[in-house]
Amino acid sequence: MTERTLDKVEMEKVVSLCKRRGFIFPSSEIYGGLGSFWDYGPLGVELKRNVREAWWRAMVQERDDVVGLDAAILMHPQTWVASGHVEGFTDPLVECKACHQRWRDDMVPDGVCPACGGEITEPRMFNLMFKTFVGPVEREAAVVYLRPETAQGIFVNFANVLNSTRSKLPFGIAQTGKAFRNEITPGNFIFRTREFEQMEMEFFVKPGSDEEWFQYWVNERFEWYAGLGIRRDNLRLRQHAPDELAHYARGCYDVEYLFPMGWSELGVIANRGDFDLGQHARSSGQNLTSFDEESGEHIVPYVIEPSAGVDRSLLAFLVDAYDEEPDKNGTRTVLHFHPALAPIKVAVLPLSRNEKLAPLSREVYAGVRKEFRTQFDDAQSIGRRYRRQDEIGTPLSVTVDFQSLEDNMVTIRERDSMKQIRVPIPTLNVILSAKLGREPMEVLPEGGIYWAGFE
Amino acid sequence: MTERTLDKVEMEKVVSLCKRRGFIFPSSEIYGGLGSFWDYGPLGVELKRNVREAWWRAMVQERDDVVGLDAAILMHPQTWVASGHVEGFTDPLVECKACHQRWRDDMVPDGVCPACGGEITEPRMFNLMFKTFVGPVEREAAVVYLRPETAQGIFVNFANVLNSTRSKLPFGIAQTGKAFRNEITPGNFIFRTREFEQMEMEFFVKPGSDEEWFQYWVNERFEWYAGLGIRRDNLRLRQHAPDELAHYARGCYDVEYLFPMGWSELGVIANRGDFDLGQHARSSGQNLTSFDEESGEHIVPYVIEPSAGVDRSLLAFLVDAYDEEPDKNGTRTVLHFHPALAPIKVAVLPLSRNEKLAPLSREVYAGVRKEFRTQFDDAQSIGRRYRRQDEIGTPLSVTVDFQSLEDNMVTIRERDSMKQIRVPIPTLNVILSAKLGREPMEVLPEGGIYWAGFE
Repeated sequence: MTERTLDKVEMEKVVSLCKRRGFIFPSSEIYGGLGSFWDYGPLGVELKRNVREAWWRAMVQERDDVVGLDAAILMHPQTWVASGHVEGFTDPLVECKACHQRWRDDMVPDGVCPACGGEITEPRMFNLMFKTFVGPVEREAAVVYLRPETAQGIFVNFANVLNSTRSKLPFGIAQTGKAFRNEITPGNFIFRTREFEQMEMEFFVKPGSDEEWFQYWVNERFEWYAGLGIRRDNLRLRQHAPDELAHYARGCYDVEYLFPMGWSELGVIANRGDFDLGQHARSSGQNLTSFDEESGEHIVPYVIEPSAGVDRSLLAFLVDAYDEEPDKNGTRTVLHFHPALAPIKVAVLPLSRNEKLAPLSREVYAGVRKEFRTQFDDAQSIGRRYRRQDEIGTPLSVTVDFQSLEDNMVTIRERDSMKQIRVPIPTLNVILSAKLGREPMEVLPEGGIYWAGFE
Repeated sequence: MTERTLDKVEMEKVVSLCKRRGFIFPSSEIYGGLGSFWDYGPLGVELKRNVREAWWRAMVQERDDVVGLDAAILMHPQTWVASGHVEGFTDPLVECKACHQRWRDDMVPDGVCPACGGEITEPRMFNLMFKTFVGPVEREAAVVYLRPETAQGIFVNFANVLNSTRSKLPFGIAQTGKAFRNEITPGNFIFRTREFEQMEMEFFVKPGSDEEWFQYWVNERFEWYAGLGIRRDNLRLRQHAPDELAHYARGCYDVEYLFPMGWSELGVIANRGDFDLGQHARSSGQNLTSFDEESGEHIVPYVIEPSAGVDRSLLAFLVDAYDEEPDKNGTRTVLHFHPALAPIKVAVLPLSRNEKLAPLSREVYAGVRKEFRTQFDDAQSIGRRYRRQDEIGTPLSVTVDFQSLEDNMVTIRERDSMKQIRVPIPTLNVILSAKLGREPMEVLPEGGIYWAGFE
């Protein structure tokens, strides 16, 4: 764990770095932007891919008891009746009787319109689902919703997954993908947006074993963030009080991160009992049970749901990695990303742009980029290039200098410690692998070492 | 290249296998489905990920001149005015004056309603973009569209990408993601759907070099499909005739595949000149030029756009891989997937479910799954399990038998040739790597071999 200089990170600094270095741009910015929508730039898309991949690897690929799914964003509208979203996924909204502007109820505590001072109506419930119309006729029958969560795509596919995989309880179905909520008050950069990406898993268990699995997943999800480098001091679990729980929920924890705006939710782990499958079974008339060989009965499984936001998790990784360190040249801005998340793993930096260095530098670059996401940069001074790599969180830089032409060795410089070591070029990738934390996969009898792990 | 038995694949067989084995399910099937929407099951999601990853690797990660992007699905509505979609992304539609049902013009050649025989109106243009409403008021100003293509997200981010990456012409920006079109006549399984995923890249070049780059990308995109195992006889390029081209287009090729319903488009490579950046520059008043050091001028680049559909590419890989081979037990159904696309790379299959074999089998499984997507299966006869793996396209199976307990060797069985070889367990992963076509990355002086490549 690297010590950090900054006690508190200001969101503006992170937003500014994200735009400057191509992590995140305001969406449609040339047209003045679209409120609270964001686009991921060249580094942001790789960071987001790495967050999503780390989750998929931990939740699907490294487990024998979870399979993946990718359901459509537009689903049959009955799905949202059964799930309760058509009825209950609402915020209270009031309207000004004079200028007809609308407000969220809690934003108008005085009962007069903040825009014109007009009288305000009684609150009515506003549904947060975006709706659209399938087919060439805009009539009620063709209304569909942009899914407000990915979870329901899993429940409606429960029987198809069970039949095609021959899974037995306990087992899970995981999905990542876009979801949409017509939030009245989005904000805090990419923390709360109207379009966002979720990582959700529904873990189906025998009733009676649910409490144990619930605790298991609470722990797993907390440790996932810590394992990817977020400082434990900035993470906490918050148990929902009984009066916060939905009527069907048997328990719920938030994993929270200490963002610049305070403790806020990264994800939720909920014990949802048999509510979801029960609702869809009743609503569709289909059999959504699993056969239990032990009891010889068909049972409706209970479900533990670990759910998390890709964008807000990514924001936590960004904020937690951000630091400004005083040094002899002023301030070093650095993103201390975990190597698995860093968009670029290795930078190859010739000491200077020089035709004598160029052939070997290109050769080293060609060798490294075969195995790692690598950037080549020979513009400006080596000091400025180290700074640029620090600022985008590249864990390792490789410098080719004039000595390299003679001894066939290069310098590896570590982002966090800024320590430098000199290594023979033929061993470079093996040493980079080890420094990036890849696990040695297997030591073969003849002495070779094979590496497994991320990338 | 593996020879195939079937001359012609029936789409129904592919659809049936996809549902039975968990590749693709009708969306929201428990509610009767939602017309022409599909969900990817446990194997389908991995296959789709592999298609997308193969494209991203070829188009972004293995190139120095292309960066990635991930723009929001909901964009500023002015985007679609500038792009021409609000005005021109339409199909002609007629309505029955009696029953008010609507039809695409070319479906009513007789001028009377196919449903009730009523008189039909003159055709009017129907826009294929899905619309929705951002914010709590459904008024015109808040109308936004679900993007009908990912390309425009790239054009509106051109300046932000240029500024943050310091890119010089020629360079490209690539994006994958969902797009939506309110098609009046979707169909042919996942070939034409209302919700689909695109892989698009805009390659910005100096005017004058566009024809050369256009030809380059036409060739690259054709070879990408062939390189991932699609038989060349089933691929062709179709050049658009001058009267097919949009007024601004300087050239256009379709990459087509011989689907069961005939030759159909997998992707398009278009030379779009300066149309897109020019339109957005005029519409936004922003400077969307690139500085050319050679001439000392700011120029509006021309753009070459290689665009492809994830879902229809995946369908081509499925159809082309599908075969039924007569054998002594009847028929062997097999998917001859390229190893990079196969959802499962290796199956570990103990000869039988036996407590003597179990420990070593589990040990072999644990070793293999560290490096490859692996499935363990010990249910039913070994012959049936080979068939199951053939049917989902697993390239290699590893069988642990009683002899293995004595000689520490296992049998590798190849899906395509069905040949079997016996190898020592400590060398298993290296041999699997080689058979899966991974490139040896580097031969080290001390004799070890390191492997780079997919997974």
